[in-house]
Amino acid sequence: MNGKFVTLEGCEGVGKSTQLKYLKEYLEREGVPAVFTREPGGTPLAERIRAVLLDDSLNISPEAEAELFATARRDHIDNFILPALNEGKLVVCDRYLDSSLAYQGFGRGLGLETVLRINAYAVGKCMPDLTVFIDMDPLKSFRKMSGKKIEHDRIETENAEFHAACYRGFKEIEKLYPERFRSVVPEQDKSSTHGKIIEALKKGGVL
Amino acid sequence: MNGKFVTLEGCEGVGKSTQLKYLKEYLEREGVPAVFTREPGGTPLAERIRAVLLDDSLNISPEAEAELFATARRDHIDNFILPALNEGKLVVCDRYLDSSLAYQGFGRGLGLETVLRINAYAVGKCMPDLTVFIDMDPLKSFRKMSGKKIEHDRIETENAEFHAACYRGFKEIEKLYPERFRSVVPEQDKSSTHGKIIEALKKGGVL
Repeated sequence: MNGKFVTLEGCEGVGKSTQLKYLKEYLEREGVPAVFTREPGGTPLAERIRAVLLDDSLNISPEAEAELFATARRDHIDNFILPALNEGKLVVCDRYLDSSLAYQGFGRGLGLETVLRINAYAVGKCMPDLTVFIDMDPLKSFRKMSGKKIEHDRIETENAEFHAACYRGFKEIEKLYPERFRSVVPEQDKSSTHGKIIEALKKGGVL
Repeated sequence: MNGKFVTLEGCEGVGKSTQLKYLKEYLEREGVPAVFTREPGGTPLAERIRAVLLDDSLNISPEAEAELFATARRDHIDNFILPALNEGKLVVCDRYLDSSLAYQGFGRGLGLETVLRINAYAVGKCMPDLTVFIDMDPLKSFRKMSGKKIEHDRIETENAEFHAACYRGFKEIEKLYPERFRSVVPEQDKSSTHGKIIEALKKGGVL
């Protein structure tokens, strides 16, 4: 495996999508062979599981939710991430394991150990070389401040306490994986945030 | 839990559906409070997972397949089987854990241990009181002999070797769980097979 695996993490409404777009444009300009993907999703099976996970007509227990994310992740690893890394590409993934740890482990209260056990395959086989965490409290997020509400899926519509717990989760995960986890505090100016992310990727040795 | 949990197992085309219909009619006539369910399925989430599992446009690895069955099963246990047992009902399930052991463990070659580990929740929380296995080699099944082909899902359309391995799997599972596993060799005459199944349920103490 010659490629590098980078994940982008963050709570809802903190500007993750915009930063992924900027990063994609940057890598294209720089001629870095990169592929962008997302979780849950990234393969036909995982996208089918995504549709189930985000369907707000379904009642899904925290355990079943964590298992579905992990199964989608397994398929994503085997059929997208590892093959791309083997081709020497930079793989950039919108959410990955840390989102499961934060959302199911802390948000749903399953605990880190349970979520790590459910994700044993990813933990053993495909950990990120670098994770950029857009470090912003979702209750003070840009989207919140602007009054915008873009998505309305089963997880997005959870209450404020849930999203606060997820944020606390990310801050705990930061302590757990200091070597790969880089927190980037976003700026109002999106280009400045982009600059910080590029800097984090360079310092982390993936660019 | 005052109810009893009965599962019906067997390979493709051995007359399982007909026997479930006969059993349902019998229990209604006898006034036994019973509910019938099936796997994968039985709850809204599990039925959604069923649709994914049986979709022959998808390429699903043996591990992901086993995990999806187990997650559907977890939801089925929590939201259908255990509540019905707690109401004192006889729960009759068309396929359950043993199908995972036979199909993923033997048919797909994952092995018993792996499939049992993936199904730790079911194993720990909800094992059948009695399992009736319609003991017929699928390559010599009634459907095969009649030339009929009813379903064409992703698992049904597997090759003969796969189905032969599943059958061998069931015969191994029989040795593993002699106390709950009752093999019933079916007859050409469906009513005779039905009689044998009722006898097995009575001997097994669930009727």
